[in-house]
Amino acid sequence: MILSIRNQIPGTVVSVTSGEVMATVKVRLDGGQEITAAITLEAVKELGLAPGSSVRTLIKSTEVALATGAVQGLSIRNRIPGTVTEVTTGGAMAGVKVTVAGGELTSAITKEAVTDLGLAAGSSVVALIKSTEIALASV
Amino acid sequence: MILSIRNQIPGTVVSVTSGEVMATVKVRLDGGQEITAAITLEAVKELGLAPGSSVRTLIKSTEVALATGAVQGLSIRNRIPGTVTEVTTGGAMAGVKVTVAGGELTSAITKEAVTDLGLAAGSSVVALIKSTEIALASV
Amino acid sequence: MILSIRNQIPGTVVSVTSGEVMATVKVRLDGGQEITAAITLEAVKELGLAPGSSVRTLIKSTEVALATGAVQGLSIRNRIPGTVTEVTTGGAMAGVKVTVAGGELTSAITKEAVTDLGLAAGSSVVALIKSTEIALASV
Repeated sequence: MILSIRNQIPGTVVSVTSGEVMATVKVRLDGGQEITAAITLEAVKELGLAPGSSVRTLIKSTEVALATGAVQGLSIRNRIPGTVTEVTTGGAMAGVKVTVAGGELTSAITKEAVTDLGLAAGSSVVALIKSTEIALASV
Repeated sequence: MILSIRNQIPGTVVSVTSGEVMATVKVRLDGGQEITAAITLEAVKELGLAPGSSVRTLIKSTEVALATGAVQGLSIRNRIPGTVTEVTTGGAMAGVKVTVAGGELTSAITKEAVTDLGLAAGSSVVALIKSTEIALASV
Repeated sequence: MILSIRNQIPGTVVSVTSGEVMATVKVRLDGGQEITAAITLEAVKELGLAPGSSVRTLIKSTEVALATGAVQGLSIRNRIPGTVTEVTTGGAMAGVKVTVAGGELTSAITKEAVTDLGLAAGSSVVALIKSTEIALASV
């Protein structure tokens, strides 16, 4: 299985909180960060997720936002600090590669955002990913 | 046709920037805010979008993040200030209604985020929506 | 009303599971595949969704990931097999058209993903769509 999903970070499930339809799964990434994924309860059952399960977190590039400053009072649960290594610019969109502890993230944001934030190789950023945008794969 | 997409805000196209695959469309909402949608170039052509076109912006509730403080240095283009009017909490997720200039937004975020931000009726928030999550409808 | 949302596939509701905030709706597509949409409970009520309801599933191109090869152990509920018919490449992003049973899907992924997966007309792929990214329209 090869996925178009650029961001695949290994980790271990810390906790599962189940609602009636959705569940939130906390995962400690191998790089040390903790992330939260909101997936269907059905998926939790099918993958047999429980504390200790080894998983890969899957995040589509278009779901990764970037911040250059401190982030506070934000509903977005997942904030992974890193350093920009490469910026590729198209006519409307841009791809930004960010090195984080334990791996690399790709973010697809508007070209305008890249200009506005002054992003270039070496920029310190925080990758922001809404919990509902994170999928999990069992390994 | 009735859409499950909760957030449908009318506005007028201000500009269209075309890449080879994607395009960014700036829309002035009737409430005065300016938002950016990143959609396929194909969709721009099919809808015949150009400055002056009347559109509705469509945003799924799961794509609306909330911030309680000032937001700076963020790649997320769309930031709509408003006031929380209602919070509904489930086992894992929560629904938050936000009154904004010219309409209302619904945000589906984790229950944990609601607790962490202390959201309740009356809270001042900024709704944050990534450009790639905004669809447009011609009217 | 014309929507910028490229992917609109007709189907029939099979089941609705309601939580307090969110609901999952299973839909059998006219092409035979079964998909799951996680939408707000409020939307389920407003659309009056119940087993037998005719709907269209709406999926923004940027929400469609692609996999080559068998897909296993993945939280992403929706997996629609198909064949690539066209790849359009931009500076940062690429648009991929995929013929599936009963229709066609458009996927907007990074140019890098297209190269990495070796996608071209004729490639066999599975389109992957997270439940939270699927909207429904009553018809």
